[in-house]
Amino acid sequence: MGKTRRRNRRTTEAQTISWLKRPFQQLKNPLPPVEWATSAQVEIIHNAAMDILENTGMAFMDSEALDHWEKAGAKVDHKAEHVWIDRGLLLELIDRAPSSFTWHARNSEHNLIIGENYINFAPNSGMPYVSDLERGRRTGSLADYEKFVKLAQTIPFFHFAGGPLLEPQDLPISIRHLYRTRLMLQTTNKAIRGIAHGRIIPEDHINMLKIVFGDPLPSAVTGAVLNVTSPLRLDDRMIGGMAGLAKHKQAIIMTPFIMAGATSPITMSSALAQQNAEALGAIALTQLFNPGTPVVYGGFAQNVDMRSGSPAFGGPEGAWGLIVGAQMARRYGLPFRGSGSLTNSPIPDAQAAYETQWTMWPAVMAHTNVMLHSVGWLEAGLVASFEKFIIDCENLGMFTHFLNGFEISEESVATDAIDEIGIGGHHFGSALTQNNYKTAFYDPVLTSRDGFEQWQAKGQQDSLARAHRLYKQILAAYQRPFLDTAVSEELDAYVERREKELQGVDLYL
Amino acid sequence: MGKTRRRNRRTTEAQTISWLKRPFQQLKNPLPPVEWATSAQVEIIHNAAMDILENTGMAFMDSEALDHWEKAGAKVDHKAEHVWIDRGLLLELIDRAPSSFTWHARNSEHNLIIGENYINFAPNSGMPYVSDLERGRRTGSLADYEKFVKLAQTIPFFHFAGGPLLEPQDLPISIRHLYRTRLMLQTTNKAIRGIAHGRIIPEDHINMLKIVFGDPLPSAVTGAVLNVTSPLRLDDRMIGGMAGLAKHKQAIIMTPFIMAGATSPITMSSALAQQNAEALGAIALTQLFNPGTPVVYGGFAQNVDMRSGSPAFGGPEGAWGLIVGAQMARRYGLPFRGSGSLTNSPIPDAQAAYETQWTMWPAVMAHTNVMLHSVGWLEAGLVASFEKFIIDCENLGMFTHFLNGFEISEESVATDAIDEIGIGGHHFGSALTQNNYKTAFYDPVLTSRDGFEQWQAKGQQDSLARAHRLYKQILAAYQRPFLDTAVSEELDAYVERREKELQGVDLYL
Repeated sequence: MGKTRRRNRRTTEAQTISWLKRPFQQLKNPLPPVEWATSAQVEIIHNAAMDILENTGMAFMDSEALDHWEKAGAKVDHKAEHVWIDRGLLLELIDRAPSSFTWHARNSEHNLIIGENYINFAPNSGMPYVSDLERGRRTGSLADYEKFVKLAQTIPFFHFAGGPLLEPQDLPISIRHLYRTRLMLQTTNKAIRGIAHGRIIPEDHINMLKIVFGDPLPSAVTGAVLNVTSPLRLDDRMIGGMAGLAKHKQAIIMTPFIMAGATSPITMSSALAQQNAEALGAIALTQLFNPGTPVVYGGFAQNVDMRSGSPAFGGPEGAWGLIVGAQMARRYGLPFRGSGSLTNSPIPDAQAAYETQWTMWPAVMAHTNVMLHSVGWLEAGLVASFEKFIIDCENLGMFTHFLNGFEISEESVATDAIDEIGIGGHHFGSALTQNNYKTAFYDPVLTSRDGFEQWQAKGQQDSLARAHRLYKQILAAYQRPFLDTAVSEELDAYVERREKELQGVDLYL
Repeated sequence: MGKTRRRNRRTTEAQTISWLKRPFQQLKNPLPPVEWATSAQVEIIHNAAMDILENTGMAFMDSEALDHWEKAGAKVDHKAEHVWIDRGLLLELIDRAPSSFTWHARNSEHNLIIGENYINFAPNSGMPYVSDLERGRRTGSLADYEKFVKLAQTIPFFHFAGGPLLEPQDLPISIRHLYRTRLMLQTTNKAIRGIAHGRIIPEDHINMLKIVFGDPLPSAVTGAVLNVTSPLRLDDRMIGGMAGLAKHKQAIIMTPFIMAGATSPITMSSALAQQNAEALGAIALTQLFNPGTPVVYGGFAQNVDMRSGSPAFGGPEGAWGLIVGAQMARRYGLPFRGSGSLTNSPIPDAQAAYETQWTMWPAVMAHTNVMLHSVGWLEAGLVASFEKFIIDCENLGMFTHFLNGFEISEESVATDAIDEIGIGGHHFGSALTQNNYKTAFYDPVLTSRDGFEQWQAKGQQDSLARAHRLYKQILAAYQRPFLDTAVSEELDAYVERREKELQGVDLYL
C-alpha cells in the first residue's frame, strides 16, 4: 500500500514535467549545415582516402569478405587478409547505398527518416558501469538496463529507445543479446538497435525481430554500430555482424575509432582522411554482401590526450571532427552518425556539462542524422549515469524546441501589442501574454530559475540532486506499450530455448 | 618568508598552465555567420521597428536629447519627453556610425578591431556579489574587483580586462568610478570599459584617461554599455552617459533589456522587433550628439521564465535572440554585442555550464563582435564567481583554438604517415607524432582526462574544486604592466582631489 501511494504520488509529480507532455516528433535542422572545409579541402580528404585504399589497403579478416572483394575485382592477399580497392570500384559500391532510409519502429508512428536534415537522438550505448547518487558507481545489471530503456521510451525527445544502452554484467555474455533483445521489444515501441558481433548474435536478434515484425523482415527494423579497429582493420566479429545484418537489409552504422596521435596520424586532417578511408572501405563491403543495405557513415574522430593517453572527448578537435566528418558523408550522399554527451569527467559536474555541449552543438549544427550517446555519458563512456541522462535530456528538450523555430511574420512581430502597452509599461498582463504564456517558451524541467532565497528554501539542490529525483519520477510515469501476449510469449520461448543451446558456445564465431 | 615561498611555488605551478603560454591574439570566426531569419524576415523585423519608432515612438528623458531630435526634424513632445522618428531620418543617422572601429588599449598590441568577423571576449560585468569556495557568497569589494582585473589581464584569451566587472560595495557610490578607473589603468594594459551613468561619471573617467592617453583623447580608448529601459525608454542617466562618451567619440554599446513576456510582447519576433527599434532609436541619438561616434548594437533578448518571473538565461529563446539580433546588426552595418556565460544557476554546477554553452555557442556562431560577460556569471548575473570564471576560461581557450582552425592540405593529410604505420599499428611513436605532440592539440587546463583510479588518487576533485586552485595559481602569476610613475601619481592626485569634491554630490545628474 505504501508502494502504491508512493507510485501515485510520483505519477502525479510526473504530470508537472513538461517534457512528458510534448509529442514524439521527427526533428529537422532547418539551418544549412555548418561546414568547416572548403569544397577543395573536401576533395583533398576524399583523394587522400582513395590513395589510402588503393595503396595502403585495408584488412578484412573474414574469408567470405575476401571472396566478395576478389569477385568484385579488388586486389586481395588472402593469407594476409589484405585488400587494395580501386577508387572506381569503391565509388560504384558506395553509390549502391541509399542516401536516406526509413528505420522502422514497432509503432509505425515512431518510424524515423535517416538522412536529409533529420536528426535522431539515441541514448547512451554499451557502458559496462552505471551510477546514480543513491547507489554510486557499480557494474551494469539487467535491472538498470531496463530502467534506461524505460526512460528513453517515456521521454518523447528520444527517437531510439532500444539498443545496447548498458552491459548487463549480471548475465553471462552468451545470453545477454537474448535478454536485451527481448527486453527492448517488450519495453519500447520506439526504434531499436542491437549488437552485431559475430554471426550468431545478429541471427538470434533477427529471429526474435521476425516474431514481432513478421517474416520476411522489413528492412531496417534494427541495426547496429560496427567499428573499424583503426588503423585500417575490420575484424571477423564485425564482418560477421555485417553479414548478418546486410542479409536482411538491416541498418549498419559504420564507425572507425579514430584517436589522432594514437590510432591515426596526429594531424586532424590526416585523422579525417583515414576515417574516410576506413568508413568507405567498410561501407563498400556492406554493398557486396547485399546491394542497397542501408548504412550510416559514422564519425567518431577525436584526438588522444597527450597527458593521460585517453581519448579527448568534448574538445575543439572533436568538434572539427564532427563538422568535417558530416561534410564527407554528404560528399558521398550517406547519412551521418555523430555523438552527443561525450565527456571524460567521472561525475556530472560542470566539466561533464561543457564537454557534452562541445559535442552536441557541433553535432547538431553539422547535420548529424543519427546522434548516438546523446545522453548519459560519464568517464569516457565507461559509466552510464542516471543523473547525467536527465541533465542531458534538458538539452535534447532545448534543441528540439530550438530547431522547431519560431514564427517571424507580419502578425508575430505584433507592433500593435507594442503600441498598446507603449512606453514604460509591462507586458505581463497583456492579452497576448495571457493567451500565450503557457506554451510560448521552452518550459525547462531540470533547470532551476529560482532566486537565491527561493533556491535556499527548497534545499539548495544542485542540478545533480534534482536530476536524481527526476529520473525516479519519470520512471514512475513509464507506461508499457501494447504487445500482443502471444508474441510476447513466443519471444519468451525463443529465449528459453536458445539460452540452453548457447551454453558454452563462442558467440563470436 | 613563508609567503614568498608560497608565491614562488604558485608561480612555478602557473608555468604548467598552458593558457598562460598562449599569445594574445585578435580572434576571427572564419565560418559564415549562422543565420536564422531569411532576408525577407529580417525586413519584417526592420519594418516593424520602423513602424514602432514612427507610430509608438520612444521616450528620451533629457532636454539636450529632445533638442537634438527637434533640430534634426523629428516630432517631439517636450513635456512627455516623447519622440517619434521618421525612418528616413533614422536610417540617415544610423549610417553615420562606423561599421567597424579600433578600440585602443594602453598597450597598442592589445588594440581591438570591433566589427567584421572579429570576436572579442570581455569578462563579467556589474555584479553586486562575489563568491568563491573558500569564503562563500558575499558582497563585492575593491579587493575582489582587483583580482578579477588581474585574472583578465593574465589570461591571454581576454581582449578586455578593465571594466565594471564587480561592484566594490565597500566604497561609497560617489567614488567607485574613481577607484575602479584608477585601478584598471594601473592594473591592466588591455582594453577597458567604464560605466557611464549621468554626466559626472563619464567626465571623471575621461579626465583620468586623458592623463594616460593624452589630450585630446583618441577615439574609443574606453566605452560603456548603456541600456534602454524597455519598453522604449532611454532615461536621463543613460543619456547623460551617452553625451559624455559621444563628445569624445568613445564607444557606446547600446543594449535594450528585453525580456519577452515582461518588457516586450511575448513572441520572440516581437521582442526582436522592439529590441531593434530601441537599439536603433538610441544609436541614432549618439550620432546627433556626435556624428561618427563608434557604437555597438547590443543584443540581450531572452524570455521571462513564466514560473519564477526571472529572465530565462541560457535557453533556446536566448539563442534565437543572439542569432537574429546579430543579423539585424549586420542589416545596418553595425558591430554586434552578445553575451557568454549567462546562467540562472546559483552555483557552478552542470546547469551553470550548459546554460553558459547555450549562450556561448550561438553567440560565437552568430558573429558576436563584443562578447560581454564571457565568463564568471552565476545567479542571473548577481554573482561573480571566481571558480565559474576559470570554468568559463576553459571555453574561451577552446573557442580560441577551434576558431583558429586546422590545416587541410595535401601535406597535412599525410597519407605517407598512414602508409608508414600501415594496418593495425599505432601512431604514438611515429616521427610525425613525436615532432608535433606538444602543440598539436588544445591543451586543457581545468579539464581532467584522468581515468577513474587516477582521479580518485588525486583526491576526487570536481571541476569546481580544481577551478578554485587554478584561480589562485593564476593570480600569483599576475605581472603588473609598466605604467609611468608620474602618470600613476597624477591618477592618484586626481582621485584624491575628486574624492573630496564629490562628497554628497548626486552623481547621476
